[in-house]
Amino acid sequence: MADYDFLESNIKAFEPDAIVHFAEQRSAPYSMIDRKHAIFTQVNNVVGTLNVLFAIRELRPDCHLIKLGTMGEYGTPNIDIEEGYITIEHNGRKDVLPYPKQPGSFYHLSKVHDSHNIMFCCKIWGIRATDLNQGVVYGTMTDEVELDEALINRFDYDDVFGTVLNRFCVQAAIGQPLTVYGKGGQTRGFLDIRDTVRCIEIACENPAKSGECRVYNQFTEQFSVLELARMVEAAGKKLGMNVEIDHLPDPRVESENHYYNAKHSKLIDLGLQPHFLSDSLLDSLVNIAVKYRDRVDASLMLPQVNWREPRNDRRLQQSMTARATLGGAGSDSGRVRASKAKR
Amino acid sequence: MADYDFLESNIKAFEPDAIVHFAEQRSAPYSMIDRKHAIFTQVNNVVGTLNVLFAIRELRPDCHLIKLGTMGEYGTPNIDIEEGYITIEHNGRKDVLPYPKQPGSFYHLSKVHDSHNIMFCCKIWGIRATDLNQGVVYGTMTDEVELDEALINRFDYDDVFGTVLNRFCVQAAIGQPLTVYGKGGQTRGFLDIRDTVRCIEIACENPAKSGECRVYNQFTEQFSVLELARMVEAAGKKLGMNVEIDHLPDPRVESENHYYNAKHSKLIDLGLQPHFLSDSLLDSLVNIAVKYRDRVDASLMLPQVNWREPRNDRRLQQSMTARATLGGAGSDSGRVRASKAKR
Repeated sequence: MADYDFLESNIKAFEPDAIVHFAEQRSAPYSMIDRKHAIFTQVNNVVGTLNVLFAIRELRPDCHLIKLGTMGEYGTPNIDIEEGYITIEHNGRKDVLPYPKQPGSFYHLSKVHDSHNIMFCCKIWGIRATDLNQGVVYGTMTDEVELDEALINRFDYDDVFGTVLNRFCVQAAIGQPLTVYGKGGQTRGFLDIRDTVRCIEIACENPAKSGECRVYNQFTEQFSVLELARMVEAAGKKLGMNVEIDHLPDPRVESENHYYNAKHSKLIDLGLQPHFLSDSLLDSLVNIAVKYRDRVDASLMLPQVNWREPRNDRRLQQSMTARATLGGAGSDSGRVRASKAKR
Repeated sequence: MADYDFLESNIKAFEPDAIVHFAEQRSAPYSMIDRKHAIFTQVNNVVGTLNVLFAIRELRPDCHLIKLGTMGEYGTPNIDIEEGYITIEHNGRKDVLPYPKQPGSFYHLSKVHDSHNIMFCCKIWGIRATDLNQGVVYGTMTDEVELDEALINRFDYDDVFGTVLNRFCVQAAIGQPLTVYGKGGQTRGFLDIRDTVRCIEIACENPAKSGECRVYNQFTEQFSVLELARMVEAAGKKLGMNVEIDHLPDPRVESENHYYNAKHSKLIDLGLQPHFLSDSLLDSLVNIAVKYRDRVDASLMLPQVNWREPRNDRRLQQSMTARATLGGAGSDSGRVRASKAKR
């Protein structure tokens, strides 16, 4: 995306009616490693999205941009989170304005920058855009992926690219305590990977109008991190595993207890039928982690990136294996045997 | 600023207590020329500011960052504009949140990106910052500059780097009609260049607290573009000049008539004594333009950059002379003789 000539030639060749733009550096901890990672994240993401916007305007002005944003753009305000816009009454007057953003990492900031750029291009050029503010994704299986083991998606569980429920399932599977950051009261929106895919399909089937910049909050349920840990603990017990919960000092700068009520009705209105995180789904997630547990690198779980430091020196071994995947088509370096956590 | 090694060595050498950061691409029309100018503007400004933030955290954590923002970050909402933050009551709850931003160019967007990045770094690293959301500056003289002609500041009047009141004075001085974009109901905050300098001094003398990201709206009066044109017309008449007003199609995408009421009391509370745009000041501005009118390039006044186009091919001659300055220490290319407007 950062290479405009490449992007231009592809758009000319494909003549797309919709562009689903997921091509960004996607990890908050990665963006917080040091200055170079922060700058790489923001330049890569902002320039890539600007290139897509210019390419649409120049080559396919009717093409619908579907852009992956994040629920993390909003932060954790003490009022309800709306879908992209909020009606504000102030000193006797009223307007509908972009919802104020309080992102929590240089990565989340890059998505906020993108959102502002997209909104502006819709306004000046009449571009059609849907900004999908996605919650934290869990799971690895979709109907298509289930057809063959070789199709299984990445299953990131490490401290940099992993997501929290994936990590908890893997920690339970290898007998490591679940690592909750701080009190664990951090509440976020979550969704099943199958709903991720369906939401994109829904957005494609229902394009935005010319000049419209729609924002959908793409998640199905809210949980606190501690609630998730408790649920994995219970699922583990049912499977005869002894699961412990550890509270680590929070490496991030965030509220460990806060109000959180985020709206998410627009995708439901368009037909999304959520896969909720039921006991049976959680059992199957833990079972997947158990099935592939001999591939897990147990040393990748503890947080190595501290938000409070301007540079974090991660151990060489860890940065070499940070992309370890479980069950996926990842590199061999990710396929090391389970070992005890190093600390 | 974009060269971190240079920045680092300078901060180590100077050990500053405050950094006044004006080092950004500062023109909205420049950022709207085409994709490359848009990307240059955003990368240059965002990376420069990130570098300053990291340098302060690493080298001078107590150093006060004074950053030039712009009133254009807010756009023209239908409610009062507050200074950086707004208290929002929503569904029975309340919070103080960053004021929603609706910037009107890739340049203004870059400042919004900066503001979000600065706010975040104050939060995670305890940096002290003052974000000065400045209005449109007019005038060229300060007490210090007046000591010698060689000290006179840039006086940009061209369509890319010029500001509106400067351009109107120059157009009046050379007998060109004042070029109002659209209806001219665009209302903005304005301030005298002497107040700009004083506001920075005030910010330096009253540093933000550790972790505080203050936002001051730095302007002293609101005018619509048409009001300014009428004032220059009147000042010209007093000086025996015949001043006409032309309405051009607005090259920007903006409201030509809108509500505008922006708060600006915080700098006054700290001691700013504004220089208002009185008749006598306007007379002296027009007189400065008259004094140097033989240096004006009359072909630089008409807008060449259309917001609605993704690329604007500006004439070679004009791009070569776009940095023309009047009375300043600019390059020779800016010192061409006045000639009739071409169109």
